[in-house]
Amino acid sequence: MDNPIRPNVLDPNCGSRRALDLIADKWTMLVVYVLAAHQTVRYGELQRQIGGISQKMLTQTLRKMEHDGLINRTVYPVVPPKVEYSLTPLGCTLIEPLSALCQWSETYMHQVEAARSAALNPNGDQ
Amino acid sequence: MDNPIRPNVLDPNCGSRRALDLIADKWTMLVVYVLAAHQTVRYGELQRQIGGISQKMLTQTLRKMEHDGLINRTVYPVVPPKVEYSLTPLGCTLIEPLSALCQWSETYMHQVEAARSAALNPNGDQ
Repeated sequence: MDNPIRPNVLDPNCGSRRALDLIADKWTMLVVYVLAAHQTVRYGELQRQIGGISQKMLTQTLRKMEHDGLINRTVYPVVPPKVEYSLTPLGCTLIEPLSALCQWSETYMHQVEAARSAALNPNGDQ
Repeated sequence: MDNPIRPNVLDPNCGSRRALDLIADKWTMLVVYVLAAHQTVRYGELQRQIGGISQKMLTQTLRKMEHDGLINRTVYPVVPPKVEYSLTPLGCTLIEPLSALCQWSETYMHQVEAARSAALNPNGDQ
């Protein structure tokens, strides 16, 4: 409460908040997760791996990640065109913290679902 | 690519994906960050600490986190009403992985900003 130093990430004008905006995103996390497991992945394979992502959202997410230096996009001049994605060295630094969140989701999902059920049915009688 | 076991978090119908939906959110992360530092925080103090969050977004975020078992909301019957928030034991399990992401943002923000500048100005001539 009385901490005189405001952590940077709490300041909306600080670069660290803008960096958090980038990575605190489910789709970004899942793209990193898949690229970390497979190194180089084609667009269609990313879409197959990440269940529930629309083509529009995958395209937007990949463009943002490329723009912000997290992934490389390589286009091969063949017919049909072949486009591959991979993590940059900066993107690779995200593997560990983002995998920890994915791991948290797998470890604690039952507690989250139990809390949701209890909140929806506080008396346990429905 | 040929991994026959689909990690749960990639399956939109799995509880772990729903748990990831909950925590892969900038505002959730920042609320955990502030509550981790201060244990018990009043609404107004949360809003002051988290720069740039609107009242509507803070209220929505806190409701969702309470509903999903991450935070406790305690109302004291005083005038004016006093409402305090704190992390539940489940919420406390998020401190480490979410702090790692906030830390990443502070460590790598300069690389992200450099990549953004390069993407906006690929020839370095503007």
